[in-house]
Amino acid sequence: MIFGISLSADVPVRQASLRQHNLRLVLGQVALVSPQSRADIAAATGLTRATVSTLVDDLVSGRLLREVSPAPRSGAGRPGVGLVLNDADGPAGLGLEINVDYLAACVLDLAGAVRHREIQPGDRRGVDPATVLASAAALASRAVLAAEDQGLTIVGTAVAVPGLVSPDGTIRLAPNLGWRDVDASGFTPGPLTVENEANLAALGELHHGSPGSADFLYVSGEIGIGAGIVLHGSLFRGARGWSGELGHVAVHPDGPACRCGAHGCLEQYAGQEALLSSGASAVSPGASVADLVSAAERGDPATLARLSTAADALGVTIAGVINLLDVDTVVLGGIYAPLTPWLRPGIEAQIADRVLTAAWSPVRVRPAGLGSNAAVVGAAGAVIRAVHEEPAAWLVPASPGKA
Amino acid sequence: MIFGISLSADVPVRQASLRQHNLRLVLGQVALVSPQSRADIAAATGLTRATVSTLVDDLVSGRLLREVSPAPRSGAGRPGVGLVLNDADGPAGLGLEINVDYLAACVLDLAGAVRHREIQPGDRRGVDPATVLASAAALASRAVLAAEDQGLTIVGTAVAVPGLVSPDGTIRLAPNLGWRDVDASGFTPGPLTVENEANLAALGELHHGSPGSADFLYVSGEIGIGAGIVLHGSLFRGARGWSGELGHVAVHPDGPACRCGAHGCLEQYAGQEALLSSGASAVSPGASVADLVSAAERGDPATLARLSTAADALGVTIAGVINLLDVDTVVLGGIYAPLTPWLRPGIEAQIADRVLTAAWSPVRVRPAGLGSNAAVVGAAGAVIRAVHEEPAAWLVPASPGKA
Repeated sequence: MIFGISLSADVPVRQASLRQHNLRLVLGQVALVSPQSRADIAAATGLTRATVSTLVDDLVSGRLLREVSPAPRSGAGRPGVGLVLNDADGPAGLGLEINVDYLAACVLDLAGAVRHREIQPGDRRGVDPATVLASAAALASRAVLAAEDQGLTIVGTAVAVPGLVSPDGTIRLAPNLGWRDVDASGFTPGPLTVENEANLAALGELHHGSPGSADFLYVSGEIGIGAGIVLHGSLFRGARGWSGELGHVAVHPDGPACRCGAHGCLEQYAGQEALLSSGASAVSPGASVADLVSAAERGDPATLARLSTAADALGVTIAGVINLLDVDTVVLGGIYAPLTPWLRPGIEAQIADRVLTAAWSPVRVRPAGLGSNAAVVGAAGAVIRAVHEEPAAWLVPASPGKA
Repeated sequence: MIFGISLSADVPVRQASLRQHNLRLVLGQVALVSPQSRADIAAATGLTRATVSTLVDDLVSGRLLREVSPAPRSGAGRPGVGLVLNDADGPAGLGLEINVDYLAACVLDLAGAVRHREIQPGDRRGVDPATVLASAAALASRAVLAAEDQGLTIVGTAVAVPGLVSPDGTIRLAPNLGWRDVDASGFTPGPLTVENEANLAALGELHHGSPGSADFLYVSGEIGIGAGIVLHGSLFRGARGWSGELGHVAVHPDGPACRCGAHGCLEQYAGQEALLSSGASAVSPGASVADLVSAAERGDPATLARLSTAADALGVTIAGVINLLDVDTVVLGGIYAPLTPWLRPGIEAQIADRVLTAAWSPVRVRPAGLGSNAAVVGAAGAVIRAVHEEPAAWLVPASPGKA
């Protein structure tokens, strides 16, 4: 008889947990290298072949793994049947993003490949939340159909929103949408989680992008500015889940009034509206970030001055975060990704000036690998990761005595 | 035969780990409630009485537990021998603090009681590091003797320093001491760890004070200003161990030059020198924090104005931290503890203005329960906690097959 212990929780682990653990181990092994035979998995995990076979059978019948033609095998013996993550008729994750000037949907399969993507631009400021949620629900329905057409089953939805979300799915405050206490818990069918967009973007970058570090600050520039904090390869959510409100950190405490009620917040200097605001610039009101990039590429002085102001403000704030949290990488996401060439020098200068450890412990500043898709890809990825982390939940219950 | 699994590390746990786990479980149970009989411990932990007896015997012979007269017992049966943490002739932790204007030592026994304390005031600015370390070593020797006189054995030393410390014990930078790359690894005999003072103060407050929350920002006001960040009951050290440099977060980016090389750092507005600086004030140069408290109590206008400026600057910075990290409690330590009545209103006003979640998620601001002893108590406590967390390391190795 086999028992397990959980070192972290200081309580005995029941047998079901051991099965869960081993299912995760086997699934994770195939995610790492595939195709792999049952024998390969046994060798890599230290589990017996019999146990691996039982677990693999469960994962195949649960449609998390599928068998492919025999894996190439070094050494003697008949090659075993290869196993890969089931990207043919397995589970898939649906990510949605509700942002101020666009809605987006994305479907990822179990292997993390994007199988469907839709973006719907349009300003949502002042639009009734119910109307926006209905549009998002329509986007979700089309994504579910697109997944089904490819044989995939959506097993859950994660929604990225630019605001503060309660654990129950209530959007407590999304200042730039003008939302307060909006219940988003059941606007589309099936299991649903709602999460801050910068958090999901950071997760997207971590698991599907290329942050180059397990400790980074993801700065998400949109109408608002959010941050996702990844430490030791995990998203840091704060004590109550409301971390990362970088846009409302003060740059100049006596500066201009912010929509949040305070003064001199980072958003006033580096938010999308500050960057695109009218003034003596080649970028006219109503312009897009692409226009801004063009003007910067042409060397338009007013545009360059505005980007320099934004970079300084971002740099002061980011330097404060690094002094506080000691991360070695800053990832510029959202609208900041394409603006990195103009923002980076100012940010790096502030870091060099202000971070106490900068002299011997360099900080890298780089654009998000996923660009503006990070949040919606991160959302879909969060659903998929939940399957990887608890595969047992997607299978039939274990029969007694099964390990 | 019994196996264990580590759910977090995804690798099998060896038998020795199970014994370690169970030793920790038993020791932790006695730390929670004492005296307790072997039977009580078995009932509380779910371990068999035979296993508990073996473990307790090991802990008693290893001098981590000691037996006292029978514990009062409800129900029938002969009362068992009571067990308590060995505070008579057991291990003890030595904490040292090297600060700019004092050195301190503290001995804690296994039960967390202070058994010896010494404070040596004196300005160390500009003093050769070797001289300061020699004074600290002399303080340590006296503490070791004081512990031995009480039957205790110092099993390790932790040193709190106001600066950035490498994992190898090198003090990379302590701006207010004027230290750079000082090797503090072997200045006193025995196992030694060197750690940032604000981190240890936060740990002291967590385990030996009364933070009132498992998620708090400990703000340590001395010549410099440091922060210890406690999240979910654990100290957050940052990616490389250099977190919490709150004193060098910018309040006014174009403000006065700081010793660190940057401008407008929090220390320039709220550090001890800013609070005690000359000017139109009843507090004269060379004054102490006690003088400042007296002047504030008398209502001296210049003192109150200076405290108000400091409170505003602290409030702006702390609000930024809360926006970023979402903690529900701010603990004012070091010189800020006695100044709390004058600092709190300004800090609370900035939090109310600037923290996005403040309206529905209140933040408490309170003085450190341990006052200015937090760091040195936290240092000694860190040694003791290491014993509690890995009791097996202080015992003889397990014989094969023993659980």
